[in-house]
Amino acid sequence: MIVILKNRADADELDNLVYWLKEQGIGVRPTVGESQTILGLVGDTSRIDMDLIAALDIVEGVKRVQEPFKYVNRKFHPENTVISVGDVKIGNGELTIFAGPNAVESEEMLMETAKAVKEGGARILTGGAFKSRSSPYAFQGLGIEGLRLLIKAKEETGLPVMSEIMDGSQLPAFEDVDILAVGAGNMQNYALLRALGQCRKPVLLRRNPSATYEEFLMSAEYIVAGGNEQVILCERGVRTFENYTRGTLDVTAVPVLKSLTHLPVVVDPSHACGKYALVPALAAAAVAAGADGVCLDVHCDPAHARCGGPQSLTTEKFKRVAGKLMSVAEAVR
Amino acid sequence: MIVILKNRADADELDNLVYWLKEQGIGVRPTVGESQTILGLVGDTSRIDMDLIAALDIVEGVKRVQEPFKYVNRKFHPENTVISVGDVKIGNGELTIFAGPNAVESEEMLMETAKAVKEGGARILTGGAFKSRSSPYAFQGLGIEGLRLLIKAKEETGLPVMSEIMDGSQLPAFEDVDILAVGAGNMQNYALLRALGQCRKPVLLRRNPSATYEEFLMSAEYIVAGGNEQVILCERGVRTFENYTRGTLDVTAVPVLKSLTHLPVVVDPSHACGKYALVPALAAAAVAAGADGVCLDVHCDPAHARCGGPQSLTTEKFKRVAGKLMSVAEAVR
Amino acid sequence: MIVILKNRADADELDNLVYWLKEQGIGVRPTVGESQTILGLVGDTSRIDMDLIAALDIVEGVKRVQEPFKYVNRKFHPENTVISVGDVKIGNGELTIFAGPNAVESEEMLMETAKAVKEGGARILTGGAFKSRSSPYAFQGLGIEGLRLLIKAKEETGLPVMSEIMDGSQLPAFEDVDILAVGAGNMQNYALLRALGQCRKPVLLRRNPSATYEEFLMSAEYIVAGGNEQVILCERGVRTFENYTRGTLDVTAVPVLKSLTHLPVVVDPSHACGKYALVPALAAAAVAAGADGVCLDVHCDPAHARCGGPQSLTTEKFKRVAGKLMSVAEAVR
Amino acid sequence: MIVILKNRADADELDNLVYWLKEQGIGVRPTVGESQTILGLVGDTSRIDMDLIAALDIVEGVKRVQEPFKYVNRKFHPENTVISVGDVKIGNGELTIFAGPNAVESEEMLMETAKAVKEGGARILTGGAFKSRSSPYAFQGLGIEGLRLLIKAKEETGLPVMSEIMDGSQLPAFEDVDILAVGAGNMQNYALLRALGQCRKPVLLRRNPSATYEEFLMSAEYIVAGGNEQVILCERGVRTFENYTRGTLDVTAVPVLKSLTHLPVVVDPSHACGKYALVPALAAAAVAAGADGVCLDVHCDPAHARCGGPQSLTTEKFKRVAGKLMSVAEAVR
Repeated sequence: MIVILKNRADADELDNLVYWLKEQGIGVRPTVGESQTILGLVGDTSRIDMDLIAALDIVEGVKRVQEPFKYVNRKFHPENTVISVGDVKIGNGELTIFAGPNAVESEEMLMETAKAVKEGGARILTGGAFKSRSSPYAFQGLGIEGLRLLIKAKEETGLPVMSEIMDGSQLPAFEDVDILAVGAGNMQNYALLRALGQCRKPVLLRRNPSATYEEFLMSAEYIVAGGNEQVILCERGVRTFENYTRGTLDVTAVPVLKSLTHLPVVVDPSHACGKYALVPALAAAAVAAGADGVCLDVHCDPAHARCGGPQSLTTEKFKRVAGKLMSVAEAVR
Repeated sequence: MIVILKNRADADELDNLVYWLKEQGIGVRPTVGESQTILGLVGDTSRIDMDLIAALDIVEGVKRVQEPFKYVNRKFHPENTVISVGDVKIGNGELTIFAGPNAVESEEMLMETAKAVKEGGARILTGGAFKSRSSPYAFQGLGIEGLRLLIKAKEETGLPVMSEIMDGSQLPAFEDVDILAVGAGNMQNYALLRALGQCRKPVLLRRNPSATYEEFLMSAEYIVAGGNEQVILCERGVRTFENYTRGTLDVTAVPVLKSLTHLPVVVDPSHACGKYALVPALAAAAVAAGADGVCLDVHCDPAHARCGGPQSLTTEKFKRVAGKLMSVAEAVR
Repeated sequence: MIVILKNRADADELDNLVYWLKEQGIGVRPTVGESQTILGLVGDTSRIDMDLIAALDIVEGVKRVQEPFKYVNRKFHPENTVISVGDVKIGNGELTIFAGPNAVESEEMLMETAKAVKEGGARILTGGAFKSRSSPYAFQGLGIEGLRLLIKAKEETGLPVMSEIMDGSQLPAFEDVDILAVGAGNMQNYALLRALGQCRKPVLLRRNPSATYEEFLMSAEYIVAGGNEQVILCERGVRTFENYTRGTLDVTAVPVLKSLTHLPVVVDPSHACGKYALVPALAAAAVAAGADGVCLDVHCDPAHARCGGPQSLTTEKFKRVAGKLMSVAEAVR
Repeated sequence: MIVILKNRADADELDNLVYWLKEQGIGVRPTVGESQTILGLVGDTSRIDMDLIAALDIVEGVKRVQEPFKYVNRKFHPENTVISVGDVKIGNGELTIFAGPNAVESEEMLMETAKAVKEGGARILTGGAFKSRSSPYAFQGLGIEGLRLLIKAKEETGLPVMSEIMDGSQLPAFEDVDILAVGAGNMQNYALLRALGQCRKPVLLRRNPSATYEEFLMSAEYIVAGGNEQVILCERGVRTFENYTRGTLDVTAVPVLKSLTHLPVVVDPSHACGKYALVPALAAAAVAAGADGVCLDVHCDPAHARCGGPQSLTTEKFKRVAGKLMSVAEAVR
């Protein structure tokens, strides 16, 4: 961390700052320039709150040199974290396809879709029971009944299942769900992150559409610092000025996050763009960029889906897309 | 709502769509152009999920003409909603100043700050007990003890108090808090919004830094549709490409929201910019733009604040700023 | 185009509008709803200025149904435009690699780099002579001398060359340059676009980092409407809130633009991210998404480049990357 | 400037860097931490190209401490620059209102509007002759004839005039125009900026909707470094995710730019929002935030304007707005 002092900084206040930093175990190395003095802070600054320093009268600015996250930082944990769910391994260099309906709507549609995605090569079955919808008038999911159907599909297909959890109080209902997904709107719901830090299940954390890489990793740090190391990061489109698509897929997030953290990184092109016709190109791009997995919305009859229809692949299209993704994974390995 | 059909749309599928719309009470008026056919939907489309239509094979696109929110829509409720908290009225055309420390840190600092803001003209005392922090290593607030101190300050100063609630399970602890604030990171925490829809207290809803006006109003609609009509909207900076300041204050939100909804609109320049030196200019701009209130972080000793120091006004500066805001309010009335 | 009328629109003014539209050859189909009347405009609305209608007192809003661009619209020109430069074809379904130094710095470095990119598989040699730099103190390029060296490299390697033009007055100096590049900062320099519409050379138009797809295509429309049909679109990173990288590569632009227009679409990952270590992953993503070409900054000694060093691949890295890109192109075809 | 070295940086390369920096007159002060070494650079780093250092193998990152602009930097020129145009002074602490039609359309409308804005309190008459339009099919302005009419209006009203210049080759035609405006799309048209640096007239530089404060000031630096010190900065809306309005007015730019530079700062709310009904609130906000001036589009008959109609105030509304702005200026002084 670098502290830039104001010109003519009061000497007593500066002494106070240096003393306080030393108490935290931080060394201070000043560089006196002609027009500016800076302090280089030496030691573990990841737990120092920059704002505490920035608030001082003698300080013009503070800049980080070291990242503010620690447990999820690749610098302190160079090997990839590999997450095992049943016999599926996520983050070991192979491509894992997550697929299923945006929402569980009925037993029939779920079973038909689940069998098709399994045949097509999906390794994790996904399906929403509690839906985060921006309108209170939109379909909010089947709730507990949706989870029950998802578990049934897990039993029938043998695929591990993932579903979104919205609140810590729902944890008991998710006992048989293999991966707990956190929605993008809850990425900074710290009460929920703390609850997930206490549990011992893989968590797929969706990036908020306006979260920086650092903020995204800090949310993961909340979970890991709570004691749960099994976090999968999911890029699903950032918010930009362009509104032709729902979001703008940030494919750069893949190599950047893979360099900053040891956690697996997957991509959800269906939510990113909101239009099924773009999904094959974006999914291929994600795999080419090095993603550990891809999440695809699939529906046996998208035109009659209660939710997510415009972004869902039919089961036939899914099979073709999944095949192509495997070829791309092969080409870049 | 306008439905743009693909060229050569299948006639049977079109009949199905028209039939389904009529069942929902929606009239359909086609306009056949040379290269494109569009359907004008007539009736109450606010509860129609656009995506259900957009998913159809015969549809190229769907555009809204009517807003998707209803209870909070000024079109259906032309008079301003005025919210009473003790003898303070918010939204009646007068300027209400909310002020207090970013976080409650100790009884002493809270009392000193509370008395000063009352003297300076604040009508609502604010103070965080549960803090949403992007780092798990940052000060997370005093929790229940913070609320206890805040209630004590309310008793001593007579000012109604506002504090942030993070989770529905905390509601009992907030019994004596007058206004429940929802943090920007929880604007789309629907479990929380639903819980607040059930209670009978004013809620100050902070806009997420990347929420559109429509998304912001849809989150308010969640609360009002749940039965709680006392919602105050708070603009506190949007996320842009510029990072000189924490966020970019969206002063346009004030006249736009005031035209779209009947709810009061307040502005928080302290959180928007993160730098106290900019707060006076931004607060004045918010008032000039027509805000019903302004929320200001004030601390009796910002250089030693545990949280929010760089954005906090000293108590003396607060008094000068509050005076100037009253003059601006006078000038634009 | 859809015109949404205000409630209680004045009948005379409405007649005036309808009359004026008919004079422009536009048919008008009204849809009278309970709370809103809309007009569907039928005919070629691409040349109607929406703002002229939006300014009327009786109008609440105007929405486009048809795109405002015509010559570059795939709807009116379904087959791909293929651009021939020497024996290179751009847009015919094969991958074209553009490569070379960010700036021409000296004959020696240019020749060394040019030969290496040719060996590695590049089909177009690129090199800046006039540089757009955000600082007046940064290296501004060798100018005319840079162009002379580039032509010399063209003669030695046989590769067609591309370089950036900043002003119409420079056109004579670019006589022997094969492709004229327009920098992102000049995408809306209409004086330049008009000048390029008059010439008969391929133009590579870089997307401004904050241009929507529609704005980008409207700038291309300027050139094509001027009479020059040979336009190549180049995505090179959009501006978002994330500043870990210089820009955020918008890989979605590839399938979207390919669907909206018949022009070739290429991607420049070097400028998009500004960091060479990310270039291989992003280039692979662009190819997987269906780009017609990729532009890569390559330098024989990036650590001593006068410009663009951090984003430049060494010649050895370029060869490895180019080989991998060919494999990805194969996998997605 | 701070250089963060990679761990285990090669000693010879480090010596080379230090030697090169010293040759540029820059002192180097290393801070050796446990896990990281940083170099503090001491001296005038405003002309050092960060990228040259960032490209080195031994360097992990570079951060600026000092601003990269010099002539426009308030640190080196603490007093406000005041620009005189006839007897109007811009930047002296008083509010200057710029007003006129978006485009000069005819002598009659121009004269009517010009007289009305003069009566209402405008001190500078504005009117576009060469229009930057995103569509080649939109009205492009009357060109030279438009300038002739504007000069005539100047003679009749006695108001100095401002109009937009698009290309250096147009300079002779602007001889009698008092202030040359640079459009937002040309903010990084360096050929134009260089031409304006050579002339001796005030230039109003519009901020590109996606330019950071630093980029904006670097474009001003181009003009001032060229020898022309008379630059007025104009904020006219930044590009964000919100598209209810054309842009998002960045009112924070006013206090920030006033602190970073000595140049006058004005605001154009008409272009920022694109909707006349929002202009009064936004103009008042700009004045309250401390703007030196405000630019307003005014038209004697907005409903029939050929350009800019939706954002133009009628002459009557202008008079009311101008009066209110004067009251706000009074209140915040």
